[in-house]
Amino acid sequence: MDIPAMAEAVARGDRRMLARAITLIESSRPADRQAARELLTALPDRPAMRIGLSGTPGVGKSTFIESFGLMLVEAGHRVAVLAVDPSSARSGGSILGDKTRMEHLSRHPGAFIRPSPSQSQLGGVARRTREAIRLCEAAGHDVVLVETVGVGQSETMVADMTDLFVLLLAPGGGDELQGVKRGIMEIADLILVNKADGDLRATAIRTVADYAGALRLLRKRNQDPEGWPQALPVSALDAQGLAEAWTALSALYDWRRDEGVLARTRAAQAVTWLEREIEAGLHARLARDPRLADLMPDLRARVAGGTLPAEAAAETALDALLGTASHTP
Amino acid sequence: MDIPAMAEAVARGDRRMLARAITLIESSRPADRQAARELLTALPDRPAMRIGLSGTPGVGKSTFIESFGLMLVEAGHRVAVLAVDPSSARSGGSILGDKTRMEHLSRHPGAFIRPSPSQSQLGGVARRTREAIRLCEAAGHDVVLVETVGVGQSETMVADMTDLFVLLLAPGGGDELQGVKRGIMEIADLILVNKADGDLRATAIRTVADYAGALRLLRKRNQDPEGWPQALPVSALDAQGLAEAWTALSALYDWRRDEGVLARTRAAQAVTWLEREIEAGLHARLARDPRLADLMPDLRARVAGGTLPAEAAAETALDALLGTASHTP
Repeated sequence: MDIPAMAEAVARGDRRMLARAITLIESSRPADRQAARELLTALPDRPAMRIGLSGTPGVGKSTFIESFGLMLVEAGHRVAVLAVDPSSARSGGSILGDKTRMEHLSRHPGAFIRPSPSQSQLGGVARRTREAIRLCEAAGHDVVLVETVGVGQSETMVADMTDLFVLLLAPGGGDELQGVKRGIMEIADLILVNKADGDLRATAIRTVADYAGALRLLRKRNQDPEGWPQALPVSALDAQGLAEAWTALSALYDWRRDEGVLARTRAAQAVTWLEREIEAGLHARLARDPRLADLMPDLRARVAGGTLPAEAAAETALDALLGTASHTP
Repeated sequence: MDIPAMAEAVARGDRRMLARAITLIESSRPADRQAARELLTALPDRPAMRIGLSGTPGVGKSTFIESFGLMLVEAGHRVAVLAVDPSSARSGGSILGDKTRMEHLSRHPGAFIRPSPSQSQLGGVARRTREAIRLCEAAGHDVVLVETVGVGQSETMVADMTDLFVLLLAPGGGDELQGVKRGIMEIADLILVNKADGDLRATAIRTVADYAGALRLLRKRNQDPEGWPQALPVSALDAQGLAEAWTALSALYDWRRDEGVLARTRAAQAVTWLEREIEAGLHARLARDPRLADLMPDLRARVAGGTLPAEAAAETALDALLGTASHTP
């Protein structure tokens, strides 16, 4: 593969090449990983506004992304949508329906939509998604939406790679009833109560007021301006409230950028990423380290047979890998 | 610490020494880990019936364990109860209320109750809990109950260290309404619908019938006898249905033992444990490996400053730790 040519095409905004580049970084073959590292190093650094988005199934996430994304691309933005779905990660398949559910957005030349990578571990998905964000940014997208579903761990992961976090909720019902974990409420910068249309409009407005109060109590950070986090009503179906949501998000983003909060957050996220990369790299190397390959079948058999405790076997394996020096107290 | 004396006292069934031994294995200080390994090696191997137990908050888990445990100790069994609470793990505290909520059981000489260890990671809790099970078994407990709460990951973890898995549910409502993940239904051997008393009795009986049907559809394993998994009604409050639940569990246990299923499952669990131990050991060693300690501050600073990609920094760290040989394709 011609990596410099790929980097050049991605940086030029070639969507087909961007898709191929993401496929490359999603591969776990060692040769592809090497090529992926070269590609990432060759690409320009153009940080976009990175927005994490979560919401439980049925809340209208796809419709929201379609409407919100269309508004942005029609205003001249270039929008990338990446999906992180831990359940699809588990079953090994990606979200196939995504593009068809975002029919107009996916066809717009200013938008790029990529379903969730099929990886066996959430950690693997995290690594690929971080790298995919960088690719989309290098390709000139100035807004990157990272979508996930409400199961706790994946939200934390997405919040660790984005600048702003949006939680989409349905009108009425408490957050518990909507299956939203308290921890997710705590990381949300903006709650959007969707379906503020037709019969549900009044309920949605009331729900917004409820959450606005709750959010300020929950939030402990004092790194945000007065009045944040916020809650607003939207109707993805009628495309109502989307401009207000964008104005609010942009204001918070600008404030954080001007106050240096954004730079500090991104630096901290990069260090977290480093730690995750070390863990992921260890896993990958463990699986093919010749020192372990020789040892593991025997250790496994003895542990399974009950003649060797698991912890003692693990010590043996680690000593073989790292040397005994590394665990002197 | 006199490890042989501690091992002898634990094997004799000394409850105070068992508690001290568990405190020892919960410590992550390298000297304590060494002592813990010696202790585990010195102890006799007396596998008990290991029962995993889960249920969402409010379903009456503590009351159930109190009633079920009392029935067993009064019949001459020695029962140990270990709690795994990932949320307490996160906040760093253990479940303080446990013993008081199981007032009679905790005072019975045939019972031993231990709240969740305070560990920062679920992986750490898993390691300690597996070792605590072994300690309780060595101390002569023939039934070990490992209790957890309904958040998915912790159930899988507990199922990976027990012989049988019991899910406690409330009458009425679907499993989704009760916040039970489909994956947990799939690992349950026995569903007990609690609160089958007073006004709720009829609802509980109906719920049992609903689940009994659903369970057989869900279950893919053909390693169980005809008619399993089962659903039964119980009332922890009135101590009704507990003997039936025990009879059912014992029958399944005996069948699995006689058919060799138990031995195979335990062998597979031991191998899983080995893999987890290697991961946990790597984490611990990484934190204090001198080769990394010299390198990390500089790598962290460069990654945070944006002058070095996280993945390249991770490769540098891993090469320092494992040598470049380990990642040739």
